[in-house]
Amino acid sequence: MSDNQNILAEYPLLSHIDSPADLRHLPLEQLPAVCAELRKFIIDVLSRNPGHFASSMGTVEITVALHYVFNTPYDRIVWDVGHQAYSHKILTGRRDRFETNRTMGGLSGFPNPKESEYDTFTAGHASNSISAALGMAIASQVSKDAVKRNVVAVIGDASISGGLAFEGLNNASINNSNILIILNDNDMAIDENVGALGEYMAHLNTSKRYNEFRYKAYKFLRLHNLVNDRNKGAILRFNNSLKALLSSQQNIFEGLNIRYFGPFDGHNVAEIVRVLSDIKDMNGPRILHLRTRKGKGFKPAEDDPATWHAPGKFNKETGERYVSDPTGKPLKWQDVFGHTLVELARANEKIVGITAAMPTGCSMSFMLNAFPNRAFDVGIAEGHAVTFSGGMAKDGLMPFCCIYSTFLQRAYDEIIHDVAIQNLPVTFCIDRAGLVGEDGVTHHGAFDMAYLRSIPNMTIASPINEQWLRDLMYTAQLRTEGPMAIRYPRGSGVTAEWRTEMHRVAIGRGQQLSTGDAPVAVLTIGPIGNDVATVVKELAALGHRVAHYDMIFLKPIDDDILRRVSESCKHIVTVEDGTKCGGLGSAVMEWLNDNGRNSVQVHRIGIPDAFVTQGTVPQLRKLCGMDRESIAAKIKELLDLNV
Amino acid sequence: MSDNQNILAEYPLLSHIDSPADLRHLPLEQLPAVCAELRKFIIDVLSRNPGHFASSMGTVEITVALHYVFNTPYDRIVWDVGHQAYSHKILTGRRDRFETNRTMGGLSGFPNPKESEYDTFTAGHASNSISAALGMAIASQVSKDAVKRNVVAVIGDASISGGLAFEGLNNASINNSNILIILNDNDMAIDENVGALGEYMAHLNTSKRYNEFRYKAYKFLRLHNLVNDRNKGAILRFNNSLKALLSSQQNIFEGLNIRYFGPFDGHNVAEIVRVLSDIKDMNGPRILHLRTRKGKGFKPAEDDPATWHAPGKFNKETGERYVSDPTGKPLKWQDVFGHTLVELARANEKIVGITAAMPTGCSMSFMLNAFPNRAFDVGIAEGHAVTFSGGMAKDGLMPFCCIYSTFLQRAYDEIIHDVAIQNLPVTFCIDRAGLVGEDGVTHHGAFDMAYLRSIPNMTIASPINEQWLRDLMYTAQLRTEGPMAIRYPRGSGVTAEWRTEMHRVAIGRGQQLSTGDAPVAVLTIGPIGNDVATVVKELAALGHRVAHYDMIFLKPIDDDILRRVSESCKHIVTVEDGTKCGGLGSAVMEWLNDNGRNSVQVHRIGIPDAFVTQGTVPQLRKLCGMDRESIAAKIKELLDLNV
Repeated sequence: MSDNQNILAEYPLLSHIDSPADLRHLPLEQLPAVCAELRKFIIDVLSRNPGHFASSMGTVEITVALHYVFNTPYDRIVWDVGHQAYSHKILTGRRDRFETNRTMGGLSGFPNPKESEYDTFTAGHASNSISAALGMAIASQVSKDAVKRNVVAVIGDASISGGLAFEGLNNASINNSNILIILNDNDMAIDENVGALGEYMAHLNTSKRYNEFRYKAYKFLRLHNLVNDRNKGAILRFNNSLKALLSSQQNIFEGLNIRYFGPFDGHNVAEIVRVLSDIKDMNGPRILHLRTRKGKGFKPAEDDPATWHAPGKFNKETGERYVSDPTGKPLKWQDVFGHTLVELARANEKIVGITAAMPTGCSMSFMLNAFPNRAFDVGIAEGHAVTFSGGMAKDGLMPFCCIYSTFLQRAYDEIIHDVAIQNLPVTFCIDRAGLVGEDGVTHHGAFDMAYLRSIPNMTIASPINEQWLRDLMYTAQLRTEGPMAIRYPRGSGVTAEWRTEMHRVAIGRGQQLSTGDAPVAVLTIGPIGNDVATVVKELAALGHRVAHYDMIFLKPIDDDILRRVSESCKHIVTVEDGTKCGGLGSAVMEWLNDNGRNSVQVHRIGIPDAFVTQGTVPQLRKLCGMDRESIAAKIKELLDLNV
Repeated sequence: MSDNQNILAEYPLLSHIDSPADLRHLPLEQLPAVCAELRKFIIDVLSRNPGHFASSMGTVEITVALHYVFNTPYDRIVWDVGHQAYSHKILTGRRDRFETNRTMGGLSGFPNPKESEYDTFTAGHASNSISAALGMAIASQVSKDAVKRNVVAVIGDASISGGLAFEGLNNASINNSNILIILNDNDMAIDENVGALGEYMAHLNTSKRYNEFRYKAYKFLRLHNLVNDRNKGAILRFNNSLKALLSSQQNIFEGLNIRYFGPFDGHNVAEIVRVLSDIKDMNGPRILHLRTRKGKGFKPAEDDPATWHAPGKFNKETGERYVSDPTGKPLKWQDVFGHTLVELARANEKIVGITAAMPTGCSMSFMLNAFPNRAFDVGIAEGHAVTFSGGMAKDGLMPFCCIYSTFLQRAYDEIIHDVAIQNLPVTFCIDRAGLVGEDGVTHHGAFDMAYLRSIPNMTIASPINEQWLRDLMYTAQLRTEGPMAIRYPRGSGVTAEWRTEMHRVAIGRGQQLSTGDAPVAVLTIGPIGNDVATVVKELAALGHRVAHYDMIFLKPIDDDILRRVSESCKHIVTVEDGTKCGGLGSAVMEWLNDNGRNSVQVHRIGIPDAFVTQGTVPQLRKLCGMDRESIAAKIKELLDLNV
């Protein structure tokens, strides 16, 4: 936005809404205009400042209606996967700061309770809203709040397929809590929604014949004494069953004894307000099914919502996306992974690919296209993805299970119980490992090295470049047992020509990148080793020859390297793009102590034992003391140089 | 069993069944007799050698029918939570070793692929069977097996409420795989089954009126042109819907497009054989619903299946259980937890209790009885239990969420995303921490200290005795933010009179248990510190004064103690009932290196980086080098004594 005058002219309503209370002062008739202004505002800001676009465009009316009907923030709105919540942020006092979305020190791209009392719960990982909202509803009951508090969970049709959401639904219906679940049904997740539930959603509809038929059928069944009014809820269930019968589908929500309303048009704000007003004071758990369209109100996004999930900068008039020119730029790690998997799968017919709702993001889409019968997108269901991979491995296949580091946390037990105990050859391709940047605190892949390292039988590796990624993948599919993790970061790789021959590598062996005679050696794992290599070169130019080893493997750790280094150095600096608490540095210390070489002091550089905010990756590396300057400063300090 | 002669006389059929092939040679009419012999055999062995009783008594007919109809081991049977699988073990070549059940070197109490090719998948944690079976079904398709392979998952009605099972179901229905899911519906899990799904199961039935009414209703609907035969599956869905209508309930399996059959009597072996034969060669996912009774065939167990889940030794004639006399014996840790929680809850109305299907096992039942509105058993749904706790904490309550260490692995992401990031005051009471004994590899609470330690904001503590457990719980409810874990083992505590006054303790501060002048100090955490105290006393009697500190807190770690010890000692021995890989020993090393005191060498005693088998706790401690003798030997070695 240019200046205050323009804002008033361009956004005559929105510019006066500083909180939901202001919204609630407007007459119902003005809400469509508020929605239009919200869309215009989101398009304007996001065209210049990239963010999650299509989801938030689809929830404008839902958001306006919720804040109009409910007494927020006293009433609670819990968003599930918060990138649908931009309108919510704009309406709750953050309009003028919305330009700072997803930047360091700015607004979080997801609801963030530290940012606003209107953001009731962390919402970066899918499927948690119902459980959290149920907790809040129970809290209101137990605390005997003087004024009845309404709690609303807003969940998408993809998120609701996650096991956690189902556990929440199942539990919600037996606690007679005052919870309203809004199903934002837009027929797709980040990628196409998968699973029976997805198909089910796509087919569920209100038959026009329903109402006319209802009375006739009811009379018929009464006549045969097959239903009666006496038992509480019979009519409701009768209606529910009839709806299901007519739609030739069962309605699982009704199966779970949660009152079901809908589906309604999620873009008719007046209708949503009416329905919400009707059902808000009912007791017991309720579900309201709203049909929406991702990208609603911006034609290019409506036509191709997957691309417009997070489109980057674009021309708001033409819809042209400003895609940076990839010529000469290294391919993304994800694409190298995708191409390599297909290449390996051509030669090894045991290879299968599995991902959990991220085929485009992780480039499993390449495998899905090349071998549709050997690639599986299981939807938002990380636990299932891992156990399913375990079952396939148990019966002779060679699964490559690709999940983002932060989401793989959801499958921690499945990795242990369903893969590692049986020592099955599942390869975990851990995408988005390390700091991810703008997605922030909920999305950093900080913990995988630490949480995997404690698991017996695990092999854990991270390539420094594309050649190593390919070699590790090639090596992984040659083995016959044991889980193996290969972690790599988000974004561009480091090699222009990555399409090279693949070789088998020795498990548990790293490589020496530079020799040295200084009393300090550096051990790194993963692509952050390239930054260290630069630092080491700069130091060499100053006359300080520091040995640098790229460990490649976190587990088993290369004892040859550790033996050599501990014999020749007084200090070891470990550098890793993961938490310092339990990662590479800790593994090195364990080895040194076990081998009586603990006189060598280990200095850990990595993500500190704290939750890291959002920002660009370079900003965050600096914040965490993991950038080149900080690494150089640490080494110089140990070399007793004047820093 | 006494001798071979007796076996032949007592078990004329079973004694000749050395594999399922032998079973398949019998005529159908003899199967009830086989079932009767199996029950007798299980009763006989378990009356002398304790194990999981009621579940396996309920699945005798299912097991016999499955091995009779399917070509095992080529066809796959995947058991969900394998303590229902004793008949399966007995029929698959392990009859004569069944006496060794749950003992070191003997049969595993759960299916174990290392033990038998008939045990297709690890089955210690609930809800994984559908995902694993789906993986196997897909493997058969991808491998283009010459002979069609059938894959059967057998899952209980409690297990199916876990999110993982739902994710598996959801995915099963879109992969046109050849999977048969058998729902073993006995209306209860270890404790009473909870959740809408449980209520749903309890009410679903085949109406006697169903078949007669079906034709009439179908004609009526055809007449009104509301259903027709043209679209594939319409009739099936129509029938499903009608069944649901008549049972006044929806059937969620049908909602998921999985063909549903049942319910049938799970104790009529001939009927199960008939149904299985009918449906085994159908294509696509199918679910067969069988109603069974836990403890079937042994009256006391039928009447009180919760008690008879794992009854210990008993008199097989009278049903009298040989319960050891608790007089003079310390109370279980679990009971001290349960009583203390109630005591605290009386004074602090913000306290609520949450558990996931283990109210009896963890003694949350005390809280459920005392404050039914402030205690919640959410069923087999650990992820939900944690997020639900997070929601309650966010709105002002003080949740004590009690889950076994090994099952809490299921909620790893929820701990991070839904609690720790928001720094919410959820107290995790981690039961069954450390080696658990006879339940074996899937049940040891080996990893919690390591997997929690990497999580920012976590406070992690473990009491050495009941007084400390109470003090830690008391202290936990006084704080206003931050997750806190309190871990304690299975079984009897260490103090006769535990009902003492509670005090607030300093977070991150341990206690010195003995002073010393030796160059070796011992740091322990948790009740294993009592064993170390005994060792230290024995050494003192020999004239070697070894300092012993009970850390109480793993995180934040007591830097006063570490400073003192690292100034006065050359060696630190850490002792913990948890994995050595990332636990207390690693935390101590990290501190020493960070503080330039790494010249002190750390020697870790704990669970090795390997999966540990079953046995008694003393046997396993010895195996892991964690028993008193091993600890003493290590200290003596460091003291340069002749060991």
